[in-house]
Amino acid sequence: MKLIRFGAFENEKPGVILPSGKKINVVAFGEDYNEHFFKSNGIERLADWLVENAESCPEVPGDARLGSCVARPSKIICIGLNYAKHAAESGMDLPVEPVVFFKATTALCGPNDNVIIPRNSVKTDWEVELAVVIGKKASYIEKEDAMDYVAGYCLHNDYSEREFQLERSGQWVKGKSNDTFAPMGPFMATKDEIADPHNLNLWLELNGKRIQDSNTDDLVFNIPHIVSYLSNFMTLLPGDVISTGTPAGVGLGFKPPIYLKPGDEVKLGIEGLGEQHQVAVAWSK
Amino acid sequence: MKLIRFGAFENEKPGVILPSGKKINVVAFGEDYNEHFFKSNGIERLADWLVENAESCPEVPGDARLGSCVARPSKIICIGLNYAKHAAESGMDLPVEPVVFFKATTALCGPNDNVIIPRNSVKTDWEVELAVVIGKKASYIEKEDAMDYVAGYCLHNDYSEREFQLERSGQWVKGKSNDTFAPMGPFMATKDEIADPHNLNLWLELNGKRIQDSNTDDLVFNIPHIVSYLSNFMTLLPGDVISTGTPAGVGLGFKPPIYLKPGDEVKLGIEGLGEQHQVAVAWSK
Repeated sequence: MKLIRFGAFENEKPGVILPSGKKINVVAFGEDYNEHFFKSNGIERLADWLVENAESCPEVPGDARLGSCVARPSKIICIGLNYAKHAAESGMDLPVEPVVFFKATTALCGPNDNVIIPRNSVKTDWEVELAVVIGKKASYIEKEDAMDYVAGYCLHNDYSEREFQLERSGQWVKGKSNDTFAPMGPFMATKDEIADPHNLNLWLELNGKRIQDSNTDDLVFNIPHIVSYLSNFMTLLPGDVISTGTPAGVGLGFKPPIYLKPGDEVKLGIEGLGEQHQVAVAWSK
Repeated sequence: MKLIRFGAFENEKPGVILPSGKKINVVAFGEDYNEHFFKSNGIERLADWLVENAESCPEVPGDARLGSCVARPSKIICIGLNYAKHAAESGMDLPVEPVVFFKATTALCGPNDNVIIPRNSVKTDWEVELAVVIGKKASYIEKEDAMDYVAGYCLHNDYSEREFQLERSGQWVKGKSNDTFAPMGPFMATKDEIADPHNLNLWLELNGKRIQDSNTDDLVFNIPHIVSYLSNFMTLLPGDVISTGTPAGVGLGFKPPIYLKPGDEVKLGIEGLGEQHQVAVAWSK
């Protein structure tokens, strides 16, 4: 199943993309894709409900804005330096254990929303990533069991302001959390839709030029490793998002570096998880 | 006004401590102390409601557990190295700008709950801190206006696992986020209750010995500075918690360092914001 959310920012409604490609409005199901939905076996309940009701659900208007495919989670956790070539281009050693940082959940937005270059930013950068959505509460779980805690997958652009992240007195969260820095979607694919999450091409184009181009088989730490590892340091809640890291080709890695300016177009995608398209705009009051 | 939440973990009910010291149950008001409450002028609405209804509210049972004084926020933001002597004892330079990190909101707990020493932890440490609760959405605000965005204050023990934080491949969040690592309360004092948040004694005792003892007048970056600064890097939402940093006297700073073992007792307080009492226990399945 492919879950979408559509409508105005912070007032999104739930929808589903049917196997035919038709997008239907499932407001009648009565739930958003949030912690409660995932915790209470919402994916299975929604699938059951659709058997009876899909036919009578209204279609989503073709011009509807897509929002983040999941509602605001308790946390967005990101894994740093999880592709070898990206660690090298960042001038950092390959980590011995997963590097973990958070993004503010207020950074969440739709897959095709404009990305706002923050006030005083000169180093806004992109990062195509495979994100994992947690399906049930996880604390101290083993690698062998970790996939049971995964609800599904989606595409995420982990926007990063490199000066804020690396040159402003410590801790990366400062460069990861501005509004619109976490476009999520277009849809969340439930786990059954993705045969092997560790063999998906992912790519990003800046103004039509492909500059990130890799495959999740290059992940340093794979999904079960990450989910199990994180669960030793914090409790993962249903609906939480874990972004698994970006491959080489970010702006910081070019010599000289390339950063976003107003009008730049960013397109990105992951095999089986759709595409995003953002236009960079300057911050304004 | 002093806001409390009481009852079972994750099922807390709202209450108020009256000027007489009596604790009343305000479930009849119909709201929890969450984003919606703060966003919709809840403090003023509750105060108005109490004029008519305080008399008829039931008393909170004397043995009721206190929960976190605010409901789970969208984020818990912490400021690092914000007292000069603490930076020195940590072997770190005084930052030029505020150091910012997050705690998982799943770490939130009541002021007198046991603190759970995580599995495989040998360096669980304490940090008494003044926490600020945000009252309205804040993005790119000026220092002069910042106090208008503050709803109130509370006591916070920013528990920290130093090995997880500093020796496990990067980013402090890893050592700040285990369950029970953010006891908050006993109460949130609304802004009007605290004449000067930059002149409050704060202290912490380990097994009866006072080892942190300072005053918020020693903050390197004060509250308006922090709130304004943060609002450049992320949108602050009503109910968000900002913890302003800890003074000298953490376990890491002793020579040799001292860390928590099961049975240890931690007491802490801030002038005007009450006291907390935690007993350390070993993690168990």
